[in-house]
Amino acid sequence: MAMKVRAVQFGCGPIGCSVARFAGRRSDIEIVGAVDIDPSIAGRDLAEVAGLGEKLGVNISGKADAVLSQTKPDVVFLTTVSSLKVVYSQLEKCIKAGVNVVSSCEELSYPYREEPQLSAELDKLAKANGVTVLGTGVNPGFLMDVWPLFMTGVCQEVKHVRVVRIQDASTRRGPFQKKIGAGCTNEEFKKRVAAGTLRHVGLAESVAMIASGLGWELDEVTTSIEPIVAKGQVKTNFVTVEAGQIAGVRQVGRGIRAEKELITLEFEASVGAPQSYDGVYITGVPNMEVIIKGGAHGDISTAAMIVNSVHRVVEAPPGLVTMKDLPVVSCLGVNV
Amino acid sequence: MAMKVRAVQFGCGPIGCSVARFAGRRSDIEIVGAVDIDPSIAGRDLAEVAGLGEKLGVNISGKADAVLSQTKPDVVFLTTVSSLKVVYSQLEKCIKAGVNVVSSCEELSYPYREEPQLSAELDKLAKANGVTVLGTGVNPGFLMDVWPLFMTGVCQEVKHVRVVRIQDASTRRGPFQKKIGAGCTNEEFKKRVAAGTLRHVGLAESVAMIASGLGWELDEVTTSIEPIVAKGQVKTNFVTVEAGQIAGVRQVGRGIRAEKELITLEFEASVGAPQSYDGVYITGVPNMEVIIKGGAHGDISTAAMIVNSVHRVVEAPPGLVTMKDLPVVSCLGVNV
Repeated sequence: MAMKVRAVQFGCGPIGCSVARFAGRRSDIEIVGAVDIDPSIAGRDLAEVAGLGEKLGVNISGKADAVLSQTKPDVVFLTTVSSLKVVYSQLEKCIKAGVNVVSSCEELSYPYREEPQLSAELDKLAKANGVTVLGTGVNPGFLMDVWPLFMTGVCQEVKHVRVVRIQDASTRRGPFQKKIGAGCTNEEFKKRVAAGTLRHVGLAESVAMIASGLGWELDEVTTSIEPIVAKGQVKTNFVTVEAGQIAGVRQVGRGIRAEKELITLEFEASVGAPQSYDGVYITGVPNMEVIIKGGAHGDISTAAMIVNSVHRVVEAPPGLVTMKDLPVVSCLGVNV
Repeated sequence: MAMKVRAVQFGCGPIGCSVARFAGRRSDIEIVGAVDIDPSIAGRDLAEVAGLGEKLGVNISGKADAVLSQTKPDVVFLTTVSSLKVVYSQLEKCIKAGVNVVSSCEELSYPYREEPQLSAELDKLAKANGVTVLGTGVNPGFLMDVWPLFMTGVCQEVKHVRVVRIQDASTRRGPFQKKIGAGCTNEEFKKRVAAGTLRHVGLAESVAMIASGLGWELDEVTTSIEPIVAKGQVKTNFVTVEAGQIAGVRQVGRGIRAEKELITLEFEASVGAPQSYDGVYITGVPNMEVIIKGGAHGDISTAAMIVNSVHRVVEAPPGLVTMKDLPVVSCLGVNV
């Protein structure tokens, strides 16, 4: 069995709690600290907030520096925000404390193209402090970047990569249905898109990671977002969407070179989608069509990737790394 | 673009020729030498034997030591035999010449359980000579070992792993149809199984790699082999199989702990199989069902994996490695 890893949970919202629930059950991980800025959960036991059965004896603190210096963890699970610019000061804290980081920050999953300056600074800082920094999750971090790249390993030529993620959100959490715009009007949808609160983050990063893994220099990476409109009434446990109202969101990421589209990533999440699945379609030698029936589970799988990556990150050479740089991340360390 | 890799093709049979055809087309690889013990191809240009369009200016030699010392390659593509014991002296030659090795030797794909002594010696020798040694291919090396492990990365718990590879051999090469026993009688099938000439090699290694990647200690790894009998007449371009004759082979590898089957690998290749596909079925949290429609292409994909691994192997720290130790192998280096 691998060494026992001491971890601090930094960010105790829905994703952080889901990570803590999984990490808290693992015999190869010990949660030694928890950080969140929300005063309403300060001082409470992480286990209670996250819904773990037994108390962990770990109280949530608002003071990241103090927690890091007192607990001296091997790794921080950083699950706060999607924006690399916003998360940067938190990353800096962890790195300067000499702690490895696995983060759900989507823009950290492959930041080299969108944020070359910040990426270079992060890499330098991580190396100077002897720690490894990784952004991961189910998407970005797996479905639309590493998984298609992994599948190209059995190809002799790749001309085009298409990845499709179709999610029927009807059975997901209420907040998720709200997040994708289910039940709102076209006007509200536009407002929320403009405010940046309604979107899957990571498509541009996924396009860039695929291109890099295939040795492709892209001229352009584009992303688009549009509403999926309900054709008939859709009722879930949380919302009723009338015909003509918004059922969810469709986003497309594209990688273009010499006016040719080489990479197409199609992301759809809506209530009442006919079926959920993830698909990789490679045009090449040979063509490949690979399907995850029912699709990977968003909530379970993001926490899984973050926690399952932990030994790879602790063992990796220092620096900023991405999922394609790490050896295969498997569900190690859980007893059957 | 990655550095240009200088390669020697060691073994110029069907797999070696297929590797040479792919490597010979890649701008990031230069084939600088070729070795084979078959006197009928000695002295001939590798390109001509392998069916590459242009001459490579590389003549096939029977003298491995001389080729290695004269060409000083970065890597050897070693595509000779399936048995690690038999291939060992060839590996030794390459390693002592200071050359990295990527081999199609199935028993090298994960040799630690079946050949612990040889594995330890190989690892020691590779480290002493500063080179990396890898066994890979489409299976073992991908479909029944690294692929299922890779998919468990999005799981929080794994209770059972099942991998199914069903191949309709009707459209494959004649020698492949013969290899799987198509058209032979039950008696001949038994004889060839006893002689070890009719079987997919690598199931035990694949079971062991999966177990290792999940942190499972197995009590037992078993493999079985049985004929698939044609129910009606099957005609291919190469053979006619009558009802009652052998259409192909079915092999099952199992990983067992405490009398419980945790890993099940089912391999079937026969003429007239209803459809080809590869499937990974994970029982866990969540359950996963992942399908490669039509199945990965045996011939193309084995050469792809061997050649696509080359940069990862050249860059890896010295020693014996397996596919699960390497960062993601993608189809890097081929221009679209």
